[in-house]
Amino acid sequence: MTIKNTKWVLRNRPEGLVKDSDFELITEIMPEIQEDEILIENLFLSFDPTQRTWLNDMPGYLPPVQIGEVVRSGGMGRVLESNNPEYKVGDLAFGFVGWQSHCITKPTGDERFRVIPDILPIPTMLNVMGTTGITAYYGLVELGNPQPGETVLVSGAAGATGSVAVQIAKFKGCHVIGIAGGAEKCAWLKELGVDDVIDYKNSNVAEELPKLAKNGIDIYFDNVGGDILETVLFCININARILLCGGISSGYDANRLPAGPRNLFSLIIKRATMQGFLVLDYIPQSQKALEEIATWVMEGKLKHREDVQEGIENCPQTLNRLFTGENKGKQLLKI
Amino acid sequence: MTIKNTKWVLRNRPEGLVKDSDFELITEIMPEIQEDEILIENLFLSFDPTQRTWLNDMPGYLPPVQIGEVVRSGGMGRVLESNNPEYKVGDLAFGFVGWQSHCITKPTGDERFRVIPDILPIPTMLNVMGTTGITAYYGLVELGNPQPGETVLVSGAAGATGSVAVQIAKFKGCHVIGIAGGAEKCAWLKELGVDDVIDYKNSNVAEELPKLAKNGIDIYFDNVGGDILETVLFCININARILLCGGISSGYDANRLPAGPRNLFSLIIKRATMQGFLVLDYIPQSQKALEEIATWVMEGKLKHREDVQEGIENCPQTLNRLFTGENKGKQLLKI
Repeated sequence: MTIKNTKWVLRNRPEGLVKDSDFELITEIMPEIQEDEILIENLFLSFDPTQRTWLNDMPGYLPPVQIGEVVRSGGMGRVLESNNPEYKVGDLAFGFVGWQSHCITKPTGDERFRVIPDILPIPTMLNVMGTTGITAYYGLVELGNPQPGETVLVSGAAGATGSVAVQIAKFKGCHVIGIAGGAEKCAWLKELGVDDVIDYKNSNVAEELPKLAKNGIDIYFDNVGGDILETVLFCININARILLCGGISSGYDANRLPAGPRNLFSLIIKRATMQGFLVLDYIPQSQKALEEIATWVMEGKLKHREDVQEGIENCPQTLNRLFTGENKGKQLLKI
Repeated sequence: MTIKNTKWVLRNRPEGLVKDSDFELITEIMPEIQEDEILIENLFLSFDPTQRTWLNDMPGYLPPVQIGEVVRSGGMGRVLESNNPEYKVGDLAFGFVGWQSHCITKPTGDERFRVIPDILPIPTMLNVMGTTGITAYYGLVELGNPQPGETVLVSGAAGATGSVAVQIAKFKGCHVIGIAGGAEKCAWLKELGVDDVIDYKNSNVAEELPKLAKNGIDIYFDNVGGDILETVLFCININARILLCGGISSGYDANRLPAGPRNLFSLIIKRATMQGFLVLDYIPQSQKALEEIATWVMEGKLKHREDVQEGIENCPQTLNRLFTGENKGKQLLKI
């Protein structure tokens, strides 16, 4: 069977938002799979802000995507052919499928794919039951250790990870403040049970936050980086935990360094901790998180929404939606 | 017995380095001690950078010294009179004695004084066996958890705390890089066994550090804050621990906020932790640290030096020595 693959390869290092011309859309005939390889038909691509960092020519936690390579991206597909005993034809597989319609992989190490039980809709699995849910869970629960009555602040709170983090914080009995951009996102946060909301596009966070966080902030789950951190550092309590999950406010542009907080000394006065983390480290031990998240999803307790774009040709513009804030919930693309 | 007390009280909030005119030197007759009170004759005052922060009218980990109050300061004295069963006349007592020749206190809570066995010279006890040693020990050993072969960077490395931290890091089998100002301090660091030294007054830390830290930095024990942190964040390894002990580069001036590091995102890429701490939290559990430090001191393994100024009238200028870098080792004043 001849299979054609349509794929986006990187042509230029982008600056700021990506342009279609930073990439090239190529169609090619797939080769036969070799020993231990599998062929996957990609069904849904996951768009995560961190993908933008992989397009920069800078050292990071994963190697940069090289010019001419397929753009790296998580996603889910179905195994079409398999020469690997761990994967059967028809299996649903989750991993780095890339911006392409099909992929051939010898699944080892970083290229490993997880076989996913075919229970929930794929968008749900790529959202709360995927890296998004695991990120929110491990960051907030394992590293943040939220206690009932504590105040938890989440920036990018209406984003995929943020919206799970705020809900888990509520389940844990915390007072939750969410920061998001625009009335629609803020209204959605209220639906999710967030106690107080700051619309950073229509109000001044530096003025609003101290008013809302009257009892101080115990946990800050930061998805955005930049200016807000300085305001937060002025409001933290003793033993505060600041969890750095992302820094989307910088646009993840190479060499674009945002101003740093001028008051890191607050960490000393408050004996506070600021910790960066990556979901990749927690995937091998994600069973506990996924079981708890699955229960909340089944009970209808954990709300989620997916923003599903369509068509492989729309990959670059779909990535940009994360940085313009157009996405409503987890950004996906159906191939 | 009539006892006269000579004391420095705060008259104005200082800006930058303190001036004698920010304070007033007063001599008064001490009242009789009341129930549970003790009268201490102060022998040595300890000068620590954090004292400067207490003179600012800003919320901190201790209340600001109020205008008209005696300047807060740690130190050691001998009990002259006691109405408190926990303290005997002749006991050597360590606590917040203040910039004065005598003090009367009802030792409870924050005003508690520790009775110190009269074994080592007082300057040694106020240095490595005092809060300085406890700070270095708990910051580096308990929070940093240094492993043999790891690279430990210490700024303010020739200061009282820094010079203990670099030595403990060597005892733990680490590769140690120290940053200090001036040839004399750097030479002393070499005597202490520090592997590599950067003289920040005569070289460019941003250029030198990446060359010296070829294997990356696992632990950064930061006494200075400011610019250097950004350079360090570009050099950290996965799971690096950044311990914020002090920020003397700011002069601890009210409202003087130094530029923040623009690359906190490195904490995410490297899954690193930045943690502020205060020695006050560790004093109740300092027995373990003090036993280990005492052993190193008795064996002559842990080197230390004290810079002893004399005369109560010199308190303000002695405090400034910490910020001009004039002090050679732990800054003390003999009354």
